[in-house]
Amino acid sequence: MPAEPVKFTLSEDRIPTHWINLLPDLPGDPLPPLNPGTMQPAGPDDLTPIFPMSLIGQEVSAEPEVEIPEPVRDALKLWRPTPLHRARRLERDLDTPARIYYKYEGVSPAGSHKPNSAVAQAYANKEAGIERLVTETGAGQWGSALALACSLFGLDCLVYMVGASYDQKPYRRAMMETWGATVIRSPSDTTDSGRGQAAHTTGSLGIAISEAVEVAAGDPATNYALGSVLNHVCLHQTVIGQEASSQMELAGEEPDVVVGCVGGGSNFAGMSFPFLRRVLRGEAKTHFVAAEPAACPTLTRGTYRYDFGDTVGLTPLMPMYTLGHDFVPPPVHAGGLRYHGDSPIVCGLVKHGLVEARAYKQNETFAAAVRFARSEAILPAPEPAHAIRAVMDEAEAAREAGEERVILFNLCGHGHFDMSAYDAYLAGKLEDPEFSEADMQAALERLPETPAIA
Amino acid sequence: MPAEPVKFTLSEDRIPTHWINLLPDLPGDPLPPLNPGTMQPAGPDDLTPIFPMSLIGQEVSAEPEVEIPEPVRDALKLWRPTPLHRARRLERDLDTPARIYYKYEGVSPAGSHKPNSAVAQAYANKEAGIERLVTETGAGQWGSALALACSLFGLDCLVYMVGASYDQKPYRRAMMETWGATVIRSPSDTTDSGRGQAAHTTGSLGIAISEAVEVAAGDPATNYALGSVLNHVCLHQTVIGQEASSQMELAGEEPDVVVGCVGGGSNFAGMSFPFLRRVLRGEAKTHFVAAEPAACPTLTRGTYRYDFGDTVGLTPLMPMYTLGHDFVPPPVHAGGLRYHGDSPIVCGLVKHGLVEARAYKQNETFAAAVRFARSEAILPAPEPAHAIRAVMDEAEAAREAGEERVILFNLCGHGHFDMSAYDAYLAGKLEDPEFSEADMQAALERLPETPAIA
Repeated sequence: MPAEPVKFTLSEDRIPTHWINLLPDLPGDPLPPLNPGTMQPAGPDDLTPIFPMSLIGQEVSAEPEVEIPEPVRDALKLWRPTPLHRARRLERDLDTPARIYYKYEGVSPAGSHKPNSAVAQAYANKEAGIERLVTETGAGQWGSALALACSLFGLDCLVYMVGASYDQKPYRRAMMETWGATVIRSPSDTTDSGRGQAAHTTGSLGIAISEAVEVAAGDPATNYALGSVLNHVCLHQTVIGQEASSQMELAGEEPDVVVGCVGGGSNFAGMSFPFLRRVLRGEAKTHFVAAEPAACPTLTRGTYRYDFGDTVGLTPLMPMYTLGHDFVPPPVHAGGLRYHGDSPIVCGLVKHGLVEARAYKQNETFAAAVRFARSEAILPAPEPAHAIRAVMDEAEAAREAGEERVILFNLCGHGHFDMSAYDAYLAGKLEDPEFSEADMQAALERLPETPAIA
Repeated sequence: MPAEPVKFTLSEDRIPTHWINLLPDLPGDPLPPLNPGTMQPAGPDDLTPIFPMSLIGQEVSAEPEVEIPEPVRDALKLWRPTPLHRARRLERDLDTPARIYYKYEGVSPAGSHKPNSAVAQAYANKEAGIERLVTETGAGQWGSALALACSLFGLDCLVYMVGASYDQKPYRRAMMETWGATVIRSPSDTTDSGRGQAAHTTGSLGIAISEAVEVAAGDPATNYALGSVLNHVCLHQTVIGQEASSQMELAGEEPDVVVGCVGGGSNFAGMSFPFLRRVLRGEAKTHFVAAEPAACPTLTRGTYRYDFGDTVGLTPLMPMYTLGHDFVPPPVHAGGLRYHGDSPIVCGLVKHGLVEARAYKQNETFAAAVRFARSEAILPAPEPAHAIRAVMDEAEAAREAGEERVILFNLCGHGHFDMSAYDAYLAGKLEDPEFSEADMQAALERLPETPAIA
């Protein structure tokens, strides 16, 4: 071995055989999603119109581990295991005693962690006899991932792309179309949900979800696929943290801090859940940091209660931090983080004090991304730039405290389709929108009446 | 191990320690470059104004192996070793008995094989006390690679970008700028060479080279860096073939056919030279296929003679197949293949019948790329799409002959910055320009008078 290894790689037989389900280890009883009509816990019947039974089973599973079907592992082999890097050049640049590691999910063909769940969902739907999947996409990462997965498993694919991203990222659209998907700008006139939101020209994830769910609910051969938030999506992403855990062992390290960005929560969950389980079982003491945009500060500024997952109100009510289901965030470039809510599991962890949430403004995240690119070479997507900003804070704190600190973060995607944002940043043209008290007040007034969370 | 491995990975201690120099193994005496003033062999003095001595030494080295400096290996670790894939899904899609393997160089932060030489050149110039590197770029791959390498070794970087690519690929420009480089559209008014070619609005690699060489020659603190063609560039790329050779051993295979696309020749050289040396030494029988665009068919339609490497005529004369140094190819999307000449070594191999050259039209290469993307998931750059087209021909020939055939090719880069080309292809808007006899006749008439090649 060279004196200073910078990459820790695993051969493909080290792709995990099981997903890690954190539900059984969580403190307290799980809060069920509610049927908005009856306000009673939502059952499988509420979900079968848009999801296959196998995914519904994963959504509510009490098993601590769920076996990964062989055809899914076979698809994961196309890019997994992903590398773990030691950021030696960044450490030197930051002049920090901290040791910084990152898992790089940008090596997937779609450029992010999203295909980990897309192939699992495409497989489950194909097995259930479904012919087409419909979904929404913010930054384009999830839509690309599902387009790719559908192409691998022989399914048709329809993607509602949030207007702001559709306009900023024409090449993401072309990518999805190259894999055979159909892409529609949201809000669109192809659904009632879209027509009702035509005034929101930049769109939002919430609106796009409404459009996709409406299409899926109206066609038995079509199902819906969500790229984040839900338990089964978080489950599928735990291949990230499991591989990272093996790779940290190779490096002879145990992380003191695990950092990820949070939009809907799936990349954060994927990296952190395997490490969180150790903490929940008393086997480790690790600090967890969730980084989100100040323009859409769900975990740091939202209210913890039941709310809809989509803008129109077609989904079950979920227990989460929310900025209000009809909140339309400013069109910041981290499109994947523009969501009014977050994964109920991740929200619960924040609520219980197991995860610390921090919000960052757009320009400071791009400054961190450019500094990272000039030392570590990789161009990060705007979403993980939030995680990088938090990592730099941690590294600086370690320097000031004069202490070694092992930091692990998830570099969940590359920024190849976000170069216009870098262009704007370098030209000094990026804005720093923030969530206002007036925004919150307005959202609170429009929230549905739902049972209180004990 | 799983029953059907699809990826063969190496840990970073398996990055080669030496580059492979094919020069001493080539048949016949090497043909020297010529000083265009004296028509005598060019010596170091002809090159020192723009290259450091260590690279000039590599250019003419008679050693079969050249040690890779440790800081270069250290930079290569950021993304190397790259994976070798078995294209099982493509094989099934093509219904071929052939076994297809590809080395994927797109995992580098710049998205292609180009950084392999960029880091070697940046290091050599830094060691020589140079402060700035200047270069040209066609598709943007080389310019990105050099911008990245300069950022890693603390050098300033100036890139002349071929006009056609500058217009098609604004995000490639943003990428270079994110790594700190300055990018100028070529032809430009910043050089005499550029001002003299202002009529060629789409530009060409030849013109951009003239601009870059002019700048380097006029400033002692600035050197020039070329991304292909020259012997030392081909040398640096041999890490590809050496790793591929180790990985094919892991797979228990020996290639019957090795395929690469050729623009200036560096990715083809990098993959094939280690295998070619075995053939030259009588240790293997391998067939080699060089795929080039019908719009710029240097190896298949050019004339074999001495010609300039650039449009204006600032470089030494090199022995190669050429379409004429002032030929401006149509603006096909495979910008990296728009070069009037090719590596003298690669040209010599074609001349000696050791490498077979084939030319493909633009649409048939994109058809191959889309088919590849829908089976193997990765979106290829337009340049290696030519190699994929050739591989599909080989696979079909294997099926028709009913024989197993082991095909290895270099997938030298991803197409993330070429999605507008995919967009145009899917919309049926791509043209199929071809090189005409009139083009060749006109070029021949303008070629310099040079000594004949025996």
